[in-house]
Amino acid sequence: MFTEIAHTKIYLQILEQIKENIIQGHLKSGDRLPSERQWAEQLGVSRATIREAIRALEMIGLVVCQQGEGNFIAENFEDTLTQPLTIMFWLSNGQLSEVQELRRALETESAKLAAKNMTPERYASLEKLCYAIETETDESVRAELDKQFHYEIATASENKMIRNVLLSSATLIEALIKDIRIAILLDTERGPIIDQQHRNILNALRNKEPLNAAFAMSQHMDLIDGFVAGLKLDKS
Amino acid sequence: MFTEIAHTKIYLQILEQIKENIIQGHLKSGDRLPSERQWAEQLGVSRATIREAIRALEMIGLVVCQQGEGNFIAENFEDTLTQPLTIMFWLSNGQLSEVQELRRALETESAKLAAKNMTPERYASLEKLCYAIETETDESVRAELDKQFHYEIATASENKMIRNVLLSSATLIEALIKDIRIAILLDTERGPIIDQQHRNILNALRNKEPLNAAFAMSQHMDLIDGFVAGLKLDKS
Repeated sequence: MFTEIAHTKIYLQILEQIKENIIQGHLKSGDRLPSERQWAEQLGVSRATIREAIRALEMIGLVVCQQGEGNFIAENFEDTLTQPLTIMFWLSNGQLSEVQELRRALETESAKLAAKNMTPERYASLEKLCYAIETETDESVRAELDKQFHYEIATASENKMIRNVLLSSATLIEALIKDIRIAILLDTERGPIIDQQHRNILNALRNKEPLNAAFAMSQHMDLIDGFVAGLKLDKS
Repeated sequence: MFTEIAHTKIYLQILEQIKENIIQGHLKSGDRLPSERQWAEQLGVSRATIREAIRALEMIGLVVCQQGEGNFIAENFEDTLTQPLTIMFWLSNGQLSEVQELRRALETESAKLAAKNMTPERYASLEKLCYAIETETDESVRAELDKQFHYEIATASENKMIRNVLLSSATLIEALIKDIRIAILLDTERGPIIDQQHRNILNALRNKEPLNAAFAMSQHMDLIDGFVAGLKLDKS
């Protein structure tokens, strides 16, 4: 499964070997990696090198270390991009509006793809969520349901790349502006319009109209842009 | 600049401290990090721990290690997302069409933003590139110029997040399908249409028409989608 390696930047080679094993189908999500001792022997490197590599792989979200259980290929990649995206944001002196524009690009495309792939089951689930948002009175529960509504559309896009980058950028926005969803819902000017915008998106999804779904999502993002433009970054 | 730390997952805490220093403006791109010895003393951890952390930071593209020179905060983040995006792709059993759809979302939004922010200087540079593509006869040079044309539009979007995710997804597509740009240019059916599509995008950018720019880019992506749909992944 793994072959002996030479040269420097050994952790990069280990990453390459893992990638190779994944591509060839020998390794998949949730699989246990060899023990550090076994792996070091197999690759002909020191245990310290293996540990370094595992830490690095943990950092990029590829490996999950479970105390006393061993190391596993991660099962959940939704958050893989959050860390590098966040660092990129801070190092490039990023603006909140840039993350919001990234989110807009992905939300719009995801609505378009979701409309193409809509099924009666998915529509029923989205309709239920929409109704729950409309009737919920607790703003923090409403914010959570709102998040779920957008995530279900991203899942319905059947594009895991778009879904995961979208989730990471949404996570970044929420880290930059704490409780942003609650704040938008409580906004007396914009809050009341949101339910109608969700219904517009939902109708286009039901009718399997990709362009209308993208347009309705884009209008919804316009509203959020307007809100985000008035906010300052939370550097705490 | 750095304070002593406790607990496990020390490399994650070191990452947090670096991030904090970046946010506060004490560290920026290109800055040298303390030597491993100094840093270990300052943080009250072993040198092995510091080395582990540095490897991990190198892996996510935050730190660049220069042999004999020391460790630096990276200056170039364009590629930060390529590695995690690639791993996500393989682990989620990704399809080429998914990466292409991701690219479409970002190219379209980037054309829209570039139209809003277009300047006479940028237009002149894009026009020159467009002309060079049209008159170049060597297909591999043409492919390189084509790539540059798209990258300059992404830069003109003035959104570093969209630009960098776009660059990473384009890099991933090019890794999955070697010489994809050359293959499209050599395609007898689609190749000849490309110059006109570039001109359509260029005209919308010159006239500062965001929606027309997005539409022209979207048509260009339709053409590339059609090409990509007929291709198989390169697993070599």
